Amino acid sequence: MKNRKILLTEQEIPEKWYNIVHDMPNKPLPPLHPGTREPIGPEALAPLFPMELIKQEVTTEKWVDIPEEVRDVYKLWRPTPMYRAFGLEALLDTPAKIYYKYEGVSPSGSHKPNTAVAQAYYNKQEGVKRITTETGAGQWGSALSFACQHFGIECEVYMVKISYQQKPYRKVLMNTWGATVHASPTDLTEAGRKILAQDPDSPGSLGIAISEAVERAATDENTKYALGSVLNHVLMHQTVIGLEAVKQMEKAGEMPDIVVAPFGGGSNFAGISFPFLRLNLEEGRNIRCIAAEPASCPKLTRGVFRYDFGDTVGMTPLLPMYTLGHTFVPAPIHAGGLRYHGAGVVVSQLLKDKLIEARAHDQVECFEAGVLFARAEGILPAPETNHAIATAIQEARKCREEGVSRTILIHLCGHGHFDLAAYENYLSGNLEKHEITSEEIAAAIARIDTPAIR
Amino acid sequence: MKNRKILLTEQEIPEKWYNIVHDMPNKPLPPLHPGTREPIGPEALAPLFPMELIKQEVTTEKWVDIPEEVRDVYKLWRPTPMYRAFGLEALLDTPAKIYYKYEGVSPSGSHKPNTAVAQAYYNKQEGVKRITTETGAGQWGSALSFACQHFGIECEVYMVKISYQQKPYRKVLMNTWGATVHASPTDLTEAGRKILAQDPDSPGSLGIAISEAVERAATDENTKYALGSVLNHVLMHQTVIGLEAVKQMEKAGEMPDIVVAPFGGGSNFAGISFPFLRLNLEEGRNIRCIAAEPASCPKLTRGVFRYDFGDTVGMTPLLPMYTLGHTFVPAPIHAGGLRYHGAGVVVSQLLKDKLIEARAHDQVECFEAGVLFARAEGILPAPETNHAIATAIQEARKCREEGVSRTILIHLCGHGHFDLAAYENYLSGNLEKHEITSEEIAAAIARIDTPAIR
Repeated sequence: MKNRKILLTEQEIPEKWYNIVHDMPNKPLPPLHPGTREPIGPEALAPLFPMELIKQEVTTEKWVDIPEEVRDVYKLWRPTPMYRAFGLEALLDTPAKIYYKYEGVSPSGSHKPNTAVAQAYYNKQEGVKRITTETGAGQWGSALSFACQHFGIECEVYMVKISYQQKPYRKVLMNTWGATVHASPTDLTEAGRKILAQDPDSPGSLGIAISEAVERAATDENTKYALGSVLNHVLMHQTVIGLEAVKQMEKAGEMPDIVVAPFGGGSNFAGISFPFLRLNLEEGRNIRCIAAEPASCPKLTRGVFRYDFGDTVGMTPLLPMYTLGHTFVPAPIHAGGLRYHGAGVVVSQLLKDKLIEARAHDQVECFEAGVLFARAEGILPAPETNHAIATAIQEARKCREEGVSRTILIHLCGHGHFDLAAYENYLSGNLEKHEITSEEIAAAIARIDTPAIR
Repeated sequence: MKNRKILLTEQEIPEKWYNIVHDMPNKPLPPLHPGTREPIGPEALAPLFPMELIKQEVTTEKWVDIPEEVRDVYKLWRPTPMYRAFGLEALLDTPAKIYYKYEGVSPSGSHKPNTAVAQAYYNKQEGVKRITTETGAGQWGSALSFACQHFGIECEVYMVKISYQQKPYRKVLMNTWGATVHASPTDLTEAGRKILAQDPDSPGSLGIAISEAVERAATDENTKYALGSVLNHVLMHQTVIGLEAVKQMEKAGEMPDIVVAPFGGGSNFAGISFPFLRLNLEEGRNIRCIAAEPASCPKLTRGVFRYDFGDTVGMTPLLPMYTLGHTFVPAPIHAGGLRYHGAGVVVSQLLKDKLIEARAHDQVECFEAGVLFARAEGILPAPETNHAIATAIQEARKCREEGVSRTILIHLCGHGHFDLAAYENYLSGNLEKHEITSEEIAAAIARIDTPAIR
């Protein structure tokens, strides 16, 4: 009987992260100062991040060493398994070969600890006592809490108030790992107090939470800030996923024709796909890497390539990205991790250069795909993950229609054990599609007041 | 840097289950008819279980083949990893070497699928269309739903109404895997209607849910019943855990001095410990196997060895077991899987013969242990699992006091991602100890109306 899993040993955990910037035909454009709109250098980031992470943010070196201490923590769950999806193939009656790389085995149940551990480590090295961050539904906040706990750093999480109230469980997970969690807006920061003065009942937003976390770090010399996606160093840390996956596909004796991953800010898509894109760039292979995004937040498929702010308020540097505009408010879909107006700079440039593809799925299609996957393979995927499964199912059905066998690799970036309320919503027939009109998108984009990129 | 995990390949999934009955110096006493109180044979079980499982229930063969089809499903998550708990050892500053075997990687997050898959398979082989069962908090119900889904059998779960209302998430998991879940008592059965006639607002109980599930199976020829613990064949299916663990300890180059597991009905304790007890019985080793039970439901440490009913109502055969009496109502602790009045027959005989040990811990001590574990090792354990961790921590501290290094193996039988409300209760300081007085225990035992075993 055939093996379902392709496993690696702890010795096979990658020793270096892969930095795709080195191999990009067009390098990313520089960030601009939010006021002067002039290019800014790495020193502008010094109040927020430790020096080593700033270096990683701007380096064009192809490989960056993973410290032994970080690899040692990775061993708590890495290497993660790759599966051949025999059950899903049978259910779809497709000639496609489907594989999935499963990151849900991490302590917090998603891929997020890959960068959280690295970031906590470098902060610890530079004597940082406290890290602040923001979190929506809590995937990132819980990963950073785990990582900070491990290295003995205080972790302070600004959690969007409406999530704090509606989804108390992720908060409990963060507390269990010793983090302090605040319902944002708080009265602990200038930014929070300003919002509360205008609206004492504000439900909060990711943009406000970012402002609070950044302010805390900027105004306390022992405190730094950490981000869970978008930035170059964050995306690079996630490449351990794809580097393992390349080895696992080699062990399986084949290479994927298609790699699919959900897309929020870019970290989980980059994590699995960049090491395969390297093979395209280096060896002229033609592995299609598809980013699967929500139809209700379609920055890659319907947004513009433009300098825009990373936050809602407009405090961060301007970044060249595919965006729906920093004032765009995504519909309240269950895939909270994908509700972000913009895409990471590196991924945006790759899309601009047609080196990757993007596809959008509505929420109902995604849950349909997730339930089908759970029934075929046992694992219940996170709502974010369901987007990649929806793309994979489309491609597998296409293989059947065309009578062609292709090899599809899905990034199964997290389990859905914290998201059962969302599944209940779907199973009871109450899930909304949240479609978005061209007029709504045009209006959001029209509110961007930065110059277009030539 | 040292490895944290000891992994096996899919080829190393055991090919046979281990039946400890073969090696027991004193075989279990026979079950008695609930009415006549005369010993009954396997044929009495025929309306409820497929023939192959009945054979396994009474066999004294030492090894029972695991069908290829079952091993193939096991490959979705087995072999499960064993970890060296370097983080916990450091935090406790103990000379003890601590290992843990982690069953939380299964699709439903606990060890329960090991027997659910086997039971669903044999039912499928014998043409059964539908399986009924009961569930409290939902661990067992979700495992059986997953297994039935895999083999294309309908699954009907009677879930205790109060759990159904208070813990909707496990129900959603069962629904996702295609199961029908009823809030018990229902009006679908005679037993349920009788209860509802007396008390339309009955919150239900495991005893009532068992009666409903059993009645449905007994009155429909296409329907059988499945139980998640207590019975011999269920315990035997779980020995895949310990058989893998023995191999993993051998790979680590040592054998445990102490094996600890939580104790509810016996299936998870038996699963890890029986293959180590085999080494005691066969080779004269002296591996201490300790069952960790809740202080609020202390059948092993404070109960009596006595014939008693498996259910509350008194419909099942009388079984020779350590029990607090079948009318005993355990306190509402968060470790729902351990709230059962009696212990499986085989485990009871082993305890009677002093071949295993038992220890009780109150709920607060258990959550303290669980949080400490999560901070040291990353994994958040299930409330049931915390009982074993509490015992292990006691033993590790004893090693420190005595300046002795012993090797301790913990059965980490499930993750706590579905139990965050329980952790919140603990972290906010609102958790009750639920101590039980000797008078309460004496009163519950006095209500048992069967003759004592000589």
